[in-house]
Amino acid sequence: MDSATLPLYHQLATRYRRAIDDGALTPGDRMPSVRQLMERHGVSLSTALQACRELEREGLLEARPRSGYFVRRRPQPARAAPIAEPEARLPDPAQYVGIHQRISAILARSHQHAVRVSLAGLSAASDLYPVAALNAATTRALRRHPQLYGRTPEAEGHPELRAALARHALLSQINLAPEDIVVTHGCTEALHLALRAVAGPGDVIAVESPTYYGLLQILEGLGMRALEIPCSPHSGISLEALELAAQTYDSIKAVVVVPTLQNPLGSIMPDANKAALVRWCETRGIVLIEDDCFSALADGETGPAAAKSWDQSGNVIYCASLHKFLAPGMRLGWIAAGRWTARVAMLKFSQSRPNEVLAQLAVADFMGSGAFARHLRRLRDQLRIQREWMAEAIAGGFPAGTRLSTPAGGMHLWVELPAGIDSETLFELALRQGIHVAPGVMFSNSNRFDHFLRVNCGAPRSALLEDALRQLAAVANGLAAARPEPAPNVTLT
Amino acid sequence: MDSATLPLYHQLATRYRRAIDDGALTPGDRMPSVRQLMERHGVSLSTALQACRELEREGLLEARPRSGYFVRRRPQPARAAPIAEPEARLPDPAQYVGIHQRISAILARSHQHAVRVSLAGLSAASDLYPVAALNAATTRALRRHPQLYGRTPEAEGHPELRAALARHALLSQINLAPEDIVVTHGCTEALHLALRAVAGPGDVIAVESPTYYGLLQILEGLGMRALEIPCSPHSGISLEALELAAQTYDSIKAVVVVPTLQNPLGSIMPDANKAALVRWCETRGIVLIEDDCFSALADGETGPAAAKSWDQSGNVIYCASLHKFLAPGMRLGWIAAGRWTARVAMLKFSQSRPNEVLAQLAVADFMGSGAFARHLRRLRDQLRIQREWMAEAIAGGFPAGTRLSTPAGGMHLWVELPAGIDSETLFELALRQGIHVAPGVMFSNSNRFDHFLRVNCGAPRSALLEDALRQLAAVANGLAAARPEPAPNVTLT
Ligand SMILES: Cc1ncc(COP(=O)(O)O)c(C=O)c1O
Ligand SMILES: Cc1ncc(COP(=O)(O)O)c(C=O)c1O
Repeated sequence: MDSATLPLYHQLATRYRRAIDDGALTPGDRMPSVRQLMERHGVSLSTALQACRELEREGLLEARPRSGYFVRRRPQPARAAPIAEPEARLPDPAQYVGIHQRISAILARSHQHAVRVSLAGLSAASDLYPVAALNAATTRALRRHPQLYGRTPEAEGHPELRAALARHALLSQINLAPEDIVVTHGCTEALHLALRAVAGPGDVIAVESPTYYGLLQILEGLGMRALEIPCSPHSGISLEALELAAQTYDSIKAVVVVPTLQNPLGSIMPDANKAALVRWCETRGIVLIEDDCFSALADGETGPAAAKSWDQSGNVIYCASLHKFLAPGMRLGWIAAGRWTARVAMLKFSQSRPNEVLAQLAVADFMGSGAFARHLRRLRDQLRIQREWMAEAIAGGFPAGTRLSTPAGGMHLWVELPAGIDSETLFELALRQGIHVAPGVMFSNSNRFDHFLRVNCGAPRSALLEDALRQLAAVANGLAAARPEPAPNVTLT
Repeated sequence: MDSATLPLYHQLATRYRRAIDDGALTPGDRMPSVRQLMERHGVSLSTALQACRELEREGLLEARPRSGYFVRRRPQPARAAPIAEPEARLPDPAQYVGIHQRISAILARSHQHAVRVSLAGLSAASDLYPVAALNAATTRALRRHPQLYGRTPEAEGHPELRAALARHALLSQINLAPEDIVVTHGCTEALHLALRAVAGPGDVIAVESPTYYGLLQILEGLGMRALEIPCSPHSGISLEALELAAQTYDSIKAVVVVPTLQNPLGSIMPDANKAALVRWCETRGIVLIEDDCFSALADGETGPAAAKSWDQSGNVIYCASLHKFLAPGMRLGWIAAGRWTARVAMLKFSQSRPNEVLAQLAVADFMGSGAFARHLRRLRDQLRIQREWMAEAIAGGFPAGTRLSTPAGGMHLWVELPAGIDSETLFELALRQGIHVAPGVMFSNSNRFDHFLRVNCGAPRSALLEDALRQLAAVANGLAAARPEPAPNVTLT
């Protein structure tokens, strides 16, 4: 088939593909508008559009709302290259509806299949948690408090746990009194309460992009609007983009960030950025909600300081839980809500009443023992080994052009597939083989991350896991090979 | 001081007090309007108003919004007479804001005092619950599932508990599959989810009057407006008033009722009323939210049927918990949301994620044993004894004119004090003596119940309790004696 018999739009696309390959158009350049294409090449609107769409599908162009097409930063041929920095552009918060249903659909799909290997969640293998010690602490607590089930729990949480959590916060350089802390049903409830305390339906909340899909669900459930702020895999949320956002939307009520081991990026904000963010929020009169689920899993003996540690005025609401580092099965979280503590306590009371006491006592007991620090050290070491192995396995098996950041802690990897591989398709195909991964579309209300994948590395290396990764790589390679027109600089394996 | 030296308004009040005493004005009659009083008696607006207010304070008149003053149904001189039926009048939902703060203030007051005897809450003494058996079941569950704390809990609740709850629902004549049930953090979270699923900020929700203050808090927290519908101590919510309300406010989204052992009235809706209510809601396109916390505590072997048992179309959302009858310390509730099940499941996931598993397993174990039915029988018998004793103690010691309904089950009494005794003052004075009661103002957004009191009878008779009741009675009698002008037909003891 010579070029003359190819459809017109395809010929047009080839022309611009070459211009990009030759460097006549470079990343960031604006493509001629659809109108200009029509005039210059004497083609119809539909042909011009189809050509742009083809180049977009190939990852060579990207559409920006109301601005047209731009030449995209190109995927590097290097294997497992780091993920690129984002550009500081802002989406429109009003466009952000419907994520909830999309996520629901993806979550629901996974329930329709027998999952053999789950790489989708964010907890470690159950035997990496100190379950025996926690079981023993539970039995002890029941013996010490035999009437516990017969009594209404203490409002705001059991004093022993609140004291243990205040001690634990010192690791993140936060000074809290036990009374500053309200115990919650996980970080999810903490975030829910924080947002309810400071914002209402219709309010704009700035979030990281990509971000934890649970946060998008919370916002949608509360009728709030997520404004996605670009995030760097190295330094987290972009303060420049945030400033730009605040200038554009004067109604931003809060910023929600995960400064340490961001989900899904794995980024850790430098101290200077955290300090600047806290100051900026205070000056702007915008509440800072800090989600600190992962800091106990950061490499090194003491984790990074929390943004909350720079808080002078109570403007930072700190949310955390112990699911990631201690016990996914306990559903215990907490919130230190600064100026909003009383309001949060009241909302917690009206939303779900205090948490049950047994797990609180068991955790307080365990956290008060030397076994806690030993557990954390062991878990961190083990996760580092698992992360490194998994990153290698992906770099070695996935299609050329795959990029990967290796975070300094935690249990997840954020994988950028070569352009043109749709991770939702990958998700579907993998699921049919019993392998569950989290496709990038879950982490944004836009399609910006549709060729990304979050992979859990909470489980130790095993034959089952090696096998699953091989199958996953095979699926990805199959999709890469099946692309209608692979970007010329990608070598297929 | 002869009548000539008494203030004018007082003379005017005396004139009408006599008219009421003589039967010239009978209950339900409209008082002359303020304007008419001014004209007939040549008094100022302020004098006319003051006279009406004095009679209102004495309980002889009542104000109806936008209609003026009416002669009130009179307190009966009989001791512990039953509480009268309400009239079917409607308040304005827009006026209903601020309860939250008021309740908070009352709740906060109780934390500022050392409470020796709490008659304010709604749980029974801890040793009336099967704590030893539940502790044993917990230990067993940990032994059977040693990895439990290391795993993320099942969405929507553990299958064993959902199955046990579906079986338990049969006692209320409800047929449910385990999959129809979502496990929640208590009935509070269930109600919260039900309301979030079907209504949004600004929506009008019809509630019983008086009602459980927790519901008013939930509504306020969600920005919804409570429309209080009069309730009878005998048959619960007034269907006539509900119909009137629906004709007046066309935007009612849901009705929330406690058909069995209403809090605080203790009323049980007759089956015919429940059936009619279910039908009515369906016809009107209004969701019925049923709160069924107490039915396991109703006298008799099987409790009354739930309204949900008449539900043909999934329009009834059923909310319950096991705190009242099994374990106040476990924070386990559930919801069967009919047509809204998927939406409720998603909201639950985004609000707090699934409940922890340990308590679910322990409860499923216990509910599957014969000990469960035996426990319920024993608890019901014991509560009846306690209720009867407490009702007698109150009837015998409280001021003449006190009225009392004795519910056919449960653990609370709703006490109407003689007119002119403000129960919030009683609450304050009692609190100073270490006795905690729930004043009537907590159960409504209006002042309609300011001379009511909810008293817990969950604890077995004891010297401490007898003493507390005597002190409470003394405080009430003191307040009765201190009233400026006791209603003529009340004899002080
Ligand atoms: C960033 C982030 N926040 C919150 C949560 C939810 O935390 P929890 O399980 O404590 O409710 C997660 C769970 O993955 C998370 O990644
Ligand atoms: C009528 C009613 N509904 C709900 C609740 C709250 O239930 P839970 O403790 O299960 O959250 C109560 C508690 O007293 C109640 O009386």
